[in-house]
Amino acid sequence: MKRTSRDIRTANRYEVLRQIIAESPTSRQELAAATGLSLATVATLVGELLDLRMITEVGFEDSAGGRPRGLVAVDASGGALIGVDIAETYVHVELFDLALNVLARADEDMRPGESRPEQVVGHVAAAVGSVVAQAGVEAARVLGVGVSVPGQVDRDTGVAQYAPNWDWHDVPLLGLLAEHIAHPLYLDNPLRACTVAELWCGAARGRGDAVVVNLGTGVGAGLALGGGLHRGVSNSAGEWGHTTLVLDGRLCHCGNHGCVETYVGAPGIMRNLRELDPHSALLHPGDQTATIDALARAVAQDDPVALKVVRDTARYLGAGISDLINLLNPEVVVLSSWVASRLGEPLLGEVRRAVARHALGRPLAATEIVLSPIPTDPVSLGAATFALEGALQFVGQRTSAKRTTAPARSRTAPPS
Amino acid sequence: MKRTSRDIRTANRYEVLRQIIAESPTSRQELAAATGLSLATVATLVGELLDLRMITEVGFEDSAGGRPRGLVAVDASGGALIGVDIAETYVHVELFDLALNVLARADEDMRPGESRPEQVVGHVAAAVGSVVAQAGVEAARVLGVGVSVPGQVDRDTGVAQYAPNWDWHDVPLLGLLAEHIAHPLYLDNPLRACTVAELWCGAARGRGDAVVVNLGTGVGAGLALGGGLHRGVSNSAGEWGHTTLVLDGRLCHCGNHGCVETYVGAPGIMRNLRELDPHSALLHPGDQTATIDALARAVAQDDPVALKVVRDTARYLGAGISDLINLLNPEVVVLSSWVASRLGEPLLGEVRRAVARHALGRPLAATEIVLSPIPTDPVSLGAATFALEGALQFVGQRTSAKRTTAPARSRTAPPS
Repeated sequence: MKRTSRDIRTANRYEVLRQIIAESPTSRQELAAATGLSLATVATLVGELLDLRMITEVGFEDSAGGRPRGLVAVDASGGALIGVDIAETYVHVELFDLALNVLARADEDMRPGESRPEQVVGHVAAAVGSVVAQAGVEAARVLGVGVSVPGQVDRDTGVAQYAPNWDWHDVPLLGLLAEHIAHPLYLDNPLRACTVAELWCGAARGRGDAVVVNLGTGVGAGLALGGGLHRGVSNSAGEWGHTTLVLDGRLCHCGNHGCVETYVGAPGIMRNLRELDPHSALLHPGDQTATIDALARAVAQDDPVALKVVRDTARYLGAGISDLINLLNPEVVVLSSWVASRLGEPLLGEVRRAVARHALGRPLAATEIVLSPIPTDPVSLGAATFALEGALQFVGQRTSAKRTTAPARSRTAPPS
Repeated sequence: MKRTSRDIRTANRYEVLRQIIAESPTSRQELAAATGLSLATVATLVGELLDLRMITEVGFEDSAGGRPRGLVAVDASGGALIGVDIAETYVHVELFDLALNVLARADEDMRPGESRPEQVVGHVAAAVGSVVAQAGVEAARVLGVGVSVPGQVDRDTGVAQYAPNWDWHDVPLLGLLAEHIAHPLYLDNPLRACTVAELWCGAARGRGDAVVVNLGTGVGAGLALGGGLHRGVSNSAGEWGHTTLVLDGRLCHCGNHGCVETYVGAPGIMRNLRELDPHSALLHPGDQTATIDALARAVAQDDPVALKVVRDTARYLGAGISDLINLLNPEVVVLSSWVASRLGEPLLGEVRRAVARHALGRPLAATEIVLSPIPTDPVSLGAATFALEGALQFVGQRTSAKRTTAPARSRTAPPS
């Protein structure tokens, strides 16, 4: 979508807070140098964050020969954020302080067949109640709850438009959640949650253009371009899993043939293994997690079949990532989600070699490929940062810049 | 790259001038409605453009019951712009007024083997001199000269880093041109020139996210995201021609196999024809233009082989464009360059059908695929708009907002 001056001011506010969270304590001068913003702009944004009590003044540092510089730091206790990761078989919820440290976690397992919206909403409400109670934070200090649900979402109306796991169509998820949760609510999907998590706390922080390659059961590429999430005209950008790698290749559940996802998602990797050795002991039919775990353990023991599967997978993945590098010319490509984290360095090494064979020299020289450095669940972290972004988005429009408490009633969409 | 507030102000200035060029005369209120900018922002930007004498006040219109609204229009005579399209066998130069109408054209043919930088520079200087003389404009009114050269360029230093046609490496092209041409000079490549041409005067104008698919001898995808050109971290974004469509498919001159370019560029289409009918009378070996022209004529006469070639090409092209739609979720995909314009509607129809079979429903519903509506050479038009953007880029930084005449000395890069 077209970006406005307000979008940029908002993005700059995010950028300054990100830098303060990463480098507390820090000075306005250091923030200007790190973000490329002018000192005047930084001073204005720091003033807003001080008024919101998200950050505090924490003293002075000497500057060589000049006036002492005021230092600011994030006020971890200035508010709490909740991130909700709704997956096919569980709901995972984390509560964060403003420094994005995890203060509490709660999990709810969903039994097979437990897929009605009210059932899922009940689990989410229970887990959110649990983390608030565990952390002992006042309700008024919770700045918001970000909710990630798989599939297509309309974040403005809070509707889960299509969730393939449960065949949900147009479920007003935030409306249902608002009956149980009295905090501002924000909806998005796991791909975009992982991408904003990298922007706030991971390998995309401070980078101009980044691609976050999500390798899980499904596959996607979150695009962080120009310092912000690229959503596309109808909020569906990033469907890299359904781009063609092998015309007329493997049949994909989307109805096409040869999609990237059929070669490098967990089911695709199981198929790569099955084609190599149909009777492999590594193969746990019907259990993706067990198979990927077995593969990771076998790679660590230099098992030749496991090494070959990783190499084959990296060949497909390297060709697909090279396409992203040639097309978008990003500064960094981040491998994220559970398949990437379990196969780890051995997969990364093979992918780097495959990309070096495939990508054009110029964009290749400008990019690096890394594993996500985020040690916790990136989806709930990303969901929480959606809530943080929501709390920051309308700062300039408030009649008073003084901190307001959380709204008494939840809203499904921010005021326009 | 990360976008700053200044980038956005500059982009807004472009956007307002684009709208004035398209809709003269127009009011500030209509501009605000068309661009989504606030009336205050529009008024400021209109004031700057008036000071620059790029636009003029042209009277008032009644508004229902309110004060009469002032109307502004582009001042076509407020300056001249020159666009230079350097191709493998010719140099084509056009001179435009500020309404982007062509006032003069000049062509220079290059003989085979005439590929030394000084030879090319001589042709460019002669053609630029010719259009200025033909149009009878004073040198001081030429706001700038945009130069498009194939391959990789460093626009900041004015260096042609790699031009595959002539095996140029790190040729300081703008420096050489500045010895002959006393106007500000701006360098870029044809893919990006065609993309900004669509942003200023074509199908991407006023659209948030657009992809300009260039089908020529080479193939690329110019990305106009968030209302501006996406360049990537090292100015090489858009190398869609070298993304993989068929893993292990046709050998590409880049060294890889199965690149999009080997199936849908002019040589790829010739190969599609040859595979279908090695002895086709449509095939002019070694002559891409003659072959594509023959194909276009045969399609118009319902020749079954020609129709099949277009359908085969559209199948490849449709899969590749579906990848762009799924990944980027654009509002519009524009088919540009000479192969697209010669194969025209028959190709467009087949591509639309192929994309409808391939792309995911949600991004497909949000996008349209069109032929470039630009009736003249998009490369020289785009090159001229680079010069126009250059003239507008530093408005806010001038000590006086009053119009300055063109600098006495050319510069190869704008002041930082």
